[in-house]
Parts: sequence; C-alpha cells; structure tokens
Amino acid sequence: MTDLQAQIDRLVAIEAITQLKARYFRLMDTKQWDEWAQVFATDCVMEIPEADMVNHGRDEIVRAVSTALTGTTTTHHGHMPEIEITGEGTARGIWAMFDYVEFPKDDGTTWGLKGYGHYHEEYRVEDGAWRIARTRLERLRVDPF
Amino acid sequence: MTDLQAQIDRLVAIEAITQLKARYFRLMDTKQWDEWAQVFATDCVMEIPEADMVNHGRDEIVRAVSTALTGTTTTHHGHMPEIEITGEGTARGIWAMFDYVEFPKDDGTTWGLKGYGHYHEEYRVEDGAWRIARTRLERLRVDPF
Amino acid sequence: MTDLQAQIDRLVAIEAITQLKARYFRLMDTKQWDEWAQVFATDCVMEIPEADMVNHGRDEIVRAVSTALTGTTTTHHGHMPEIEITGEGTARGIWAMFDYVEFPKDDGTTWGLKGYGHYHEEYRVEDGAWRIARTRLERLRVDPF
Repeated sequence: MTDLQAQIDRLVAIEAITQLKARYFRLMDTKQWDEWAQVFATDCVMEIPEADMVNHGRDEIVRAVSTALTGTTTTHHGHMPEIEITGEGTARGIWAMFDYVEFPKDDGTTWGLKGYGHYHEEYRVEDGAWRIARTRLERLRVDPF
Repeated sequence: MTDLQAQIDRLVAIEAITQLKARYFRLMDTKQWDEWAQVFATDCVMEIPEADMVNHGRDEIVRAVSTALTGTTTTHHGHMPEIEITGEGTARGIWAMFDYVEFPKDDGTTWGLKGYGHYHEEYRVEDGAWRIARTRLERLRVDPF
Repeated sequence: MTDLQAQIDRLVAIEAITQLKARYFRLMDTKQWDEWAQVFATDCVMEIPEADMVNHGRDEIVRAVSTALTGTTTTHHGHMPEIEITGEGTARGIWAMFDYVEFPKDDGTTWGLKGYGHYHEEYRVEDGAWRIARTRLERLRVDPF
C-alpha cells in the first residue's frame, strides 16, 4: 500500500506543479497580479540572465514584473515539462517556453519581441501549496520586431 | 483502498480530458469532421465572443466550423491545462491556445490570422467517454496578416 | 491491488514517455547530441516524408540530424500528446509540433522555416528506459523565410 501511495503522490505532485505553472502564465498574461503573487514562495528568486535581472522575494518579483509589463500585451506559453520530485515537498523542473510581448511607444506605435528558451526551476510546498521557489530563464533566441 | 482509487480516478480523468482536447485540435486541423463531432457532448455550447459566434449542439458546431474552415490551412495548439474534476463525470478546465488560420482569396492569394487566448471549458461523461460540454474562447490578441 | 497497480503503471508510463519526448526536444535544441542519442531505441526509424528523409538506427539518426543542424539556431516544441500503452513496454503516441529553424548563409544572412505538423510515434522500453522506437513527421504547413 505504501508503495502504491508513494507512486500516486508523485503523480499528484507533478500534476499540481503543472497546474501551478499554468497559473503562473495565465495570471501574468491576464495581469491578475495579486493572484499571480501566490504562485511564488515568499523567498523565491527569479533570474533572467539575458536581461541582467535578478529579483529576490515574491514582493520584489511582482513589483518588478508588473511594472515592466504595464501597458503591454503579452502571451506566455510553457511546453514539455520535465518535473522531478526531489524530496518531501521539494521538486525541480525544466519547461520550454515561448513569450510574445508588445510594448506601446509614445508615438502610438509598438515594439516588442518573440522569445524562445527554457525555464529551469525549483518548487516547494509552502502554506500547503506547491509554489515556485526559484526560476531562471535561459534563452534559445529572441526576435525583436 | 477507496481513497487510493479516488486519487487514481482523478488522475485518469485528467489524462482522458487532456487526450480529448488533443483530439479536438488534431481532428480539426486534419479536417476529420465525423471523428471531430465525437469530442462534443450532443448539447455542447461553443462561444467565440470576439467573433460574435455561439453554436448550440454538436451538429450545429460541426456544421458551422467545418463550413468556416473550408479551403483553409489551420494549426491549433493548446497549452498549460488547468483541469478540475467537479463531480462524478463532470469537470472544468482552462487551456492557453494558439491558432493560425489561412484563408484562400479568389485572386489566388491568402489572408489569415494568428491568435492567442484561453479556452474556458466544461466536460461531461456521455455515452461512456469524456466530451466537451461547453467551450468559450477568450482572446489575448489576434494578429491578422 | 493488481488493478490499482495496473492503472498507476499506465499513468507512470505516460508520464515517462512525456518526459522522454521533452528531452528529445530540449537536447536537440541545446545540441547535446550524446545525451540526445539516448532518447532513441538502437534500431529506431525516423521518417520525415516531406524532406524525403528516412534514417535507420540511433547512430544514423544522430549523425544525420546533428549534421543537418550544424550552425543553426533551432526551437522545437511538442504539444497535446495522445499516448496509448499498447503492451508490456510498448506504446504509441501522436504529438502536435512546431519547429523554427534558422540556417546561416555564406554571406552572413540567414534563411529558415517555421513548420507545423504532427509526430506519429512508437515507444519501447530498452535497457530499462522508455525510448523512441519509430517516429514519422507529417506536416500541416511549412513557412519559409
């Protein structure tokens, strides 16, 4: 029984982390920042090396990203998760990603980018739910437009 | 045992609904309309608000969509499901989506769109299989070309 | 117990095959060819009919693809798996796909393509791990640039 339960627990955790990352994308693209905050552990670290950006803690992440995306239209998609449960309430994962961000310019036109890469992440159960504890985006390419 | 079975049943249902939505996309893009009809509950409602379109029932949905896509080349992808089992044989879900539709014009050229958004859906077991009982597409953006 | 275990085994196998295909994409796009080789059964057959390409065996596949992609920047994404366990250690699956390949030209510019289609695949447990035993890419469309 124990072994069956352990196998189910692993599948349930992978499914929960997959839905966690789905909320990460959807709540960012629909700009629901209060709900978005809840996908992160309070001490989460977010790194985007090609943008030279590191944010420490849920509050700083939400402030930085919500500010950067003010006025933008964004689409973020994740693909092909590789999630590994590493311990009791801890996991790590890799996701392929696509992002499409369009920024308004003062003259009424827009500029933006379409990007491709991989998230390398860690997850942790905090306050009874899986949350993103660390995330680092490594790009394959960025196409400005 | 009962609890283990309930946990497995939930994971099996989520997996079945994920494959259901995969058939929705693939059978539409390969224009296998008879098989495509089977992914819907007989009384399914499909809403696409930005196109001002509401279709009631499997037959009307298949007729409307297969007519609208005659002669087109289409690619539809779903991403990042958030599926919740809401009762015995009922569920709801959200999917990120991408669609790419190219229409022929009389002069031999084409026009089309690439779109991004989310499906908000309900599912129900009917005749022994999960089917889409309600679907509504909310757009993040549409890029005509 | 047996029935519960069989249901879990099926879900575990589907999850393993999903991660297998994730490694297929990621290790190709990051050009880690030695690790990439391990996703294939030794006698894997890869068919890309629209490119008139058939490769037999892991070694030939790795040699052909790594050569074709020398100097390129590539992004490959898989979507919407439909995986069916067909026996003890055997399975088949269909994946929607997107690929984006950019080739360098001698004059410093580039050319490339964005493509859409479906993989039709078979999987087999070999040396204790799921591997791709057969893969055939059917295109919906290719957009050169």
